[in-house]
Amino acid sequence: MGILVVGSVALDTVETPFGRVEEVLGGSAIYFSVSASFFTDVRLVAVVGDDFSDKHIQTLKKRGIDLQGLEKKPGSTFRWTGKYGFNLSDAQTQFLGLNVFADFSPRIPEAYRETPFLFLANIQPSLQLEVLKQLKRPDIVAADTMNCWIAEKRKDLLELLKRVDILTINESEARQLSEEYNLVKAARRIQAMGPKILVIKQGEYGVLMFEGDQIFSAPGYPLETVYDPTGAGDTFAGGFMGYLVNTRNFGSENLRRAIVFGSVMASFNVEDFSLNRLVKLTYPEIEERYHQFKRLSHFEGI
Amino acid sequence: MGILVVGSVALDTVETPFGRVEEVLGGSAIYFSVSASFFTDVRLVAVVGDDFSDKHIQTLKKRGIDLQGLEKKPGSTFRWTGKYGFNLSDAQTQFLGLNVFADFSPRIPEAYRETPFLFLANIQPSLQLEVLKQLKRPDIVAADTMNCWIAEKRKDLLELLKRVDILTINESEARQLSEEYNLVKAARRIQAMGPKILVIKQGEYGVLMFEGDQIFSAPGYPLETVYDPTGAGDTFAGGFMGYLVNTRNFGSENLRRAIVFGSVMASFNVEDFSLNRLVKLTYPEIEERYHQFKRLSHFEGI
Repeated sequence: MGILVVGSVALDTVETPFGRVEEVLGGSAIYFSVSASFFTDVRLVAVVGDDFSDKHIQTLKKRGIDLQGLEKKPGSTFRWTGKYGFNLSDAQTQFLGLNVFADFSPRIPEAYRETPFLFLANIQPSLQLEVLKQLKRPDIVAADTMNCWIAEKRKDLLELLKRVDILTINESEARQLSEEYNLVKAARRIQAMGPKILVIKQGEYGVLMFEGDQIFSAPGYPLETVYDPTGAGDTFAGGFMGYLVNTRNFGSENLRRAIVFGSVMASFNVEDFSLNRLVKLTYPEIEERYHQFKRLSHFEGI
Repeated sequence: MGILVVGSVALDTVETPFGRVEEVLGGSAIYFSVSASFFTDVRLVAVVGDDFSDKHIQTLKKRGIDLQGLEKKPGSTFRWTGKYGFNLSDAQTQFLGLNVFADFSPRIPEAYRETPFLFLANIQPSLQLEVLKQLKRPDIVAADTMNCWIAEKRKDLLELLKRVDILTINESEARQLSEEYNLVKAARRIQAMGPKILVIKQGEYGVLMFEGDQIFSAPGYPLETVYDPTGAGDTFAGGFMGYLVNTRNFGSENLRRAIVFGSVMASFNVEDFSLNRLVKLTYPEIEERYHQFKRLSHFEGI
């Protein structure tokens, strides 16, 4: 049955201190899908324009992603142009062309409506709510969001969060959503809004997971070459959710393992532009890096 | 035999969003000494003015710190006034009165010259070199430094680093010293300057240790109340070095344990102003938090 993901598909133009790529495959739903596809079956609901090339369709099909929910509409695919400085943490958006994504109204194919696991990638909260309405009580709902929705669509977002089991969000968004600077207090407030499991992404510093009253800290993987951080958060979410769906085990220890698998996937993704690294990745490489994460953070008891 | 520390003693005035304290005990050598005193014997070399109160002397004596090397000179003790914003990461220095510290020329008492372990807290590199000359080949030399010495006393610092085994430095200083943004590459360059063990402090995000070609990542401890980060780095170094000196074991696994003990000490220190938390601390509390660090970062293999 696998996982259903609803989000954006984009053609990205990205500049970092290490190079520049033009109109490459990107978007939250794409990074999530490709990453999750290493662990479970993925069903993708998104919209593209009639300029979306067959080469990209083939890339997704090769990863076994179910594209029945990928709508093709007259017009142009969503475009994003971003530039990163040396710190590679925040992109400066230089151009945003919503195009066919501007009127995106996710329609869930009949065959998808009983999918037990759902990831609502970052789109308007009202659309995320629309998706939920079309599904027959999924077992687990995970979601992502972003600063502009927290600021401008707060009411819809709070409505959505009541129905979300797992929220993945970055550090500054957690502070913005909770209106609290201290991350532990911020997490408690967000958990009280609905999500019992809160995953706070801290970029190169790793991930904090709040689950009930437990906290898990996963390190960032120290890499000698980081070419392009675009999609790292969605790639993380894909590995994290993909592993959970594969194992169907939402216990504490398995949640921690899933966080590490997500971190492993993100650490590969940033090694090259677009999905260039992920499409070449093999499962033995994923396992090897999992072991490296273990060695990276291991210390003995006293 | 224990550890010898050379550094500053200050009277700090500190403002954070959670309160303000005036002329409280501080300085790199003080935070280091009090923290290390939980693990080993400490010998302190520093200078204070004739205004340094006996109350502070008693605080240090209660921790068993050997004060034979604490010079009292006519004049005022070093003063520092700093203010932190909500992010509590960088203090804005509002006033700096070097006073007797301006002419500090560390004199190592005869009885200290064979101390096998040395921590050179952050003072001018030329003075750190002077200390080394007065010691009879210590087994292990650890040092700290700061941005202004990297910029203005680079030659002296590079001379010093050739004789340093362990360098503790923060993230931005590591980038500045190595002239390399990527932290893994930065670490390799700094290790080539001398220190085989490099500890990069990342504030609330924890610590990265580079030892030979191994990397260890220790998490920051997620605290609900952080009152004052002043001295966190030196408190970390005190716990880290204190544990190493206590165990006399510089193997990889023990270095990792020592990093966690340092992190434990720093996590306590930031819970209150000045040394207020450390002077009340007990060893069972330290062990308990060590176990909490273990739970915080633990995940199972695959």
